[in-house]
Amino acid sequence: MRRVAVVGAGMTAFGEHFGLGLKDLVPMAVTEMADSVEKGLDRADIQAAWFGELTTTDGFPSGILADSCGLLDIPVTRVENACATGNDAVRNATYAVGSGVVDVALVVGADKVRESSARSTFWEWAALTRDMAWDYPLGLVAPANFALHVARYLHESPATREHMAMVAVKNHRHAVSNPKAQLRFEITVEQALAAPMVVAPFGLYDCTPQSDGAAALLLVAEDVVDRYTDRPVWVRGVGLGLDRVMHQHKTDMTTFPPTVKAARAAYTMAGLGPDDIDVAEVHDCFTGVEMISYEDLGFAPRLGAYRLVEDGVTSVGGAKPVNPSGGLKAKGHPPGATGVAQCVELFEQLRGESHNQVDGARNALAHNVGGPTAVSAVTVLSVDRG
Amino acid sequence: MRRVAVVGAGMTAFGEHFGLGLKDLVPMAVTEMADSVEKGLDRADIQAAWFGELTTTDGFPSGILADSCGLLDIPVTRVENACATGNDAVRNATYAVGSGVVDVALVVGADKVRESSARSTFWEWAALTRDMAWDYPLGLVAPANFALHVARYLHESPATREHMAMVAVKNHRHAVSNPKAQLRFEITVEQALAAPMVVAPFGLYDCTPQSDGAAALLLVAEDVVDRYTDRPVWVRGVGLGLDRVMHQHKTDMTTFPPTVKAARAAYTMAGLGPDDIDVAEVHDCFTGVEMISYEDLGFAPRLGAYRLVEDGVTSVGGAKPVNPSGGLKAKGHPPGATGVAQCVELFEQLRGESHNQVDGARNALAHNVGGPTAVSAVTVLSVDRG
Repeated sequence: MRRVAVVGAGMTAFGEHFGLGLKDLVPMAVTEMADSVEKGLDRADIQAAWFGELTTTDGFPSGILADSCGLLDIPVTRVENACATGNDAVRNATYAVGSGVVDVALVVGADKVRESSARSTFWEWAALTRDMAWDYPLGLVAPANFALHVARYLHESPATREHMAMVAVKNHRHAVSNPKAQLRFEITVEQALAAPMVVAPFGLYDCTPQSDGAAALLLVAEDVVDRYTDRPVWVRGVGLGLDRVMHQHKTDMTTFPPTVKAARAAYTMAGLGPDDIDVAEVHDCFTGVEMISYEDLGFAPRLGAYRLVEDGVTSVGGAKPVNPSGGLKAKGHPPGATGVAQCVELFEQLRGESHNQVDGARNALAHNVGGPTAVSAVTVLSVDRG
Repeated sequence: MRRVAVVGAGMTAFGEHFGLGLKDLVPMAVTEMADSVEKGLDRADIQAAWFGELTTTDGFPSGILADSCGLLDIPVTRVENACATGNDAVRNATYAVGSGVVDVALVVGADKVRESSARSTFWEWAALTRDMAWDYPLGLVAPANFALHVARYLHESPATREHMAMVAVKNHRHAVSNPKAQLRFEITVEQALAAPMVVAPFGLYDCTPQSDGAAALLLVAEDVVDRYTDRPVWVRGVGLGLDRVMHQHKTDMTTFPPTVKAARAAYTMAGLGPDDIDVAEVHDCFTGVEMISYEDLGFAPRLGAYRLVEDGVTSVGGAKPVNPSGGLKAKGHPPGATGVAQCVELFEQLRGESHNQVDGARNALAHNVGGPTAVSAVTVLSVDRG
């Protein structure tokens, strides 16, 4: 497969955009992406698009992208894979560019989940991402679903609710300097622990907010990269992993096998391992999920994530910063947009242009885990440095 | 891009499977596909899957495929593109195999739209495939939407409701010998014209039924094709095209620009033209749509489709048989499955094994047009013949 580079990246602010719909958010992200392309982008260069969108609140997703961006002469595929949608859209576009069929591909992720006029969205999202015959009727919406895992994880590991609170504090602190983040305020461990309980062991500050937003990337083939930039960010590895959907079939609640599989695929394709990763955006839909993911991604030994938190390893300034953007926890989580927005953050990190820069970052990893903890997507990005 | 072959194909019967859900239908199709692989298929060979599914009535689609087929160690991407979903899933899998990353890919299309216990599906389907702000609230569900086009088409062209009835008669006749078809009975032109009106100009027999069903294909790289068969069917071309979503923005109601774009892309990639196509499965969700599509695909001159119908050109036995399976009209239409099932039919046609064989067929075309007539996908398949 020929090499694939990211040469442009943009996103809207994440938040409660009560006055904006998908048809506003998508072109805003695409315009910011186009403006970020160093040598300029003629939109007529774009040959195909992949659109990660989950909740379909505004109707036919592929058509909304084509129509709202005036991209009517190119194919647009909607990719949907629960909360792993964004990085799976990146993966499918990477294959198309790598195959030689497409030289210049647009990847957009977007969702509108707050106050849509057209449809109730929370239940759409929940129903789409669960098993509808068993888990969902029993009440396994996302917080309850992840809570089962994290409750068991706290039982098995030395980690405590205090460690989860420390993850929330870290990600809130990271978000303060991010102009695109939804929750740009610091919190304390005491505040997090005292917050109202959502579902044990998750208090309010352990949970991501629900957000509206869009993000966009431009992926191009190595053959044409020089037309767009002298500083490409390479898509070194992509991976997607699945697991059983229903919780009675899961053999170990303290790990997410889809992440292990997706990371293995992405690391293998990249020729890199967890120790090579300088900065990561990790799916912290709930604080405990970030900790479990440290282990599944190979950043920490089994049941040892708490040490990274205690030692500040994953704070910006530490050895392996995680979620310098604020993460889902504080940047926000429009599900279709999240994975693409992680890559937007890492594109800026690898070019040394982030609001919360990790010095000298060369290799970066984006990670989603979603659905009923049954799917994960991982993308590894790198820059060549002299 | 390296060459990609179809080496296995299978599908369930299409129909009202009140006793079966997606978790039953998907593995049934995959098992029939596996049984069709001449030299056998070890399921552990499958490296990745693409799943075309529209209505999400049973919940998380990718996970349902992985879980119900026991394919937990491979990535599964859900592709959704309204009624063009099936052939777009084929397109995305083709890119992944063509890229060199995947040698053996599974493509499944499925939908469960009749009497799902979990959710109302007709409105899900309608809402997902329309613009929700304007067209849908004004009543533009699929029959009304296509009726606007075909009413204008009947006004502009010499075609009449009698020609539409002749298309219905042809496709019903074709379905009689197809054990997988939903409506296996012949009708007469008189019956079609006398049937109750659904939405002018569509009577009952101008409309596809709604169906449950699943279909599966195995796509492999040229490098490994010999392991599976000595008679590969090659994916010669894939194409996807879009158009504006809302009807007030369409410039000509008598043609579907997405089909023109998708066909151009697929023909170009294949190095073939419409005259090279020996047999086609064309998206006849309504009879008039089959006629408009003859023109958009290049089978007939502009406004000249009626002649192909009058002259029997598109009947089996004619020069360019269309919908030997019975088409959506009589075989049925589970939206996510339809495009994949078209390729199942054409795989059998190109191997000389169809229930309604077109003698000597070498090149075949599958076509979907969907959403608010805003998306089309086309696949061109070929066999090498001495």
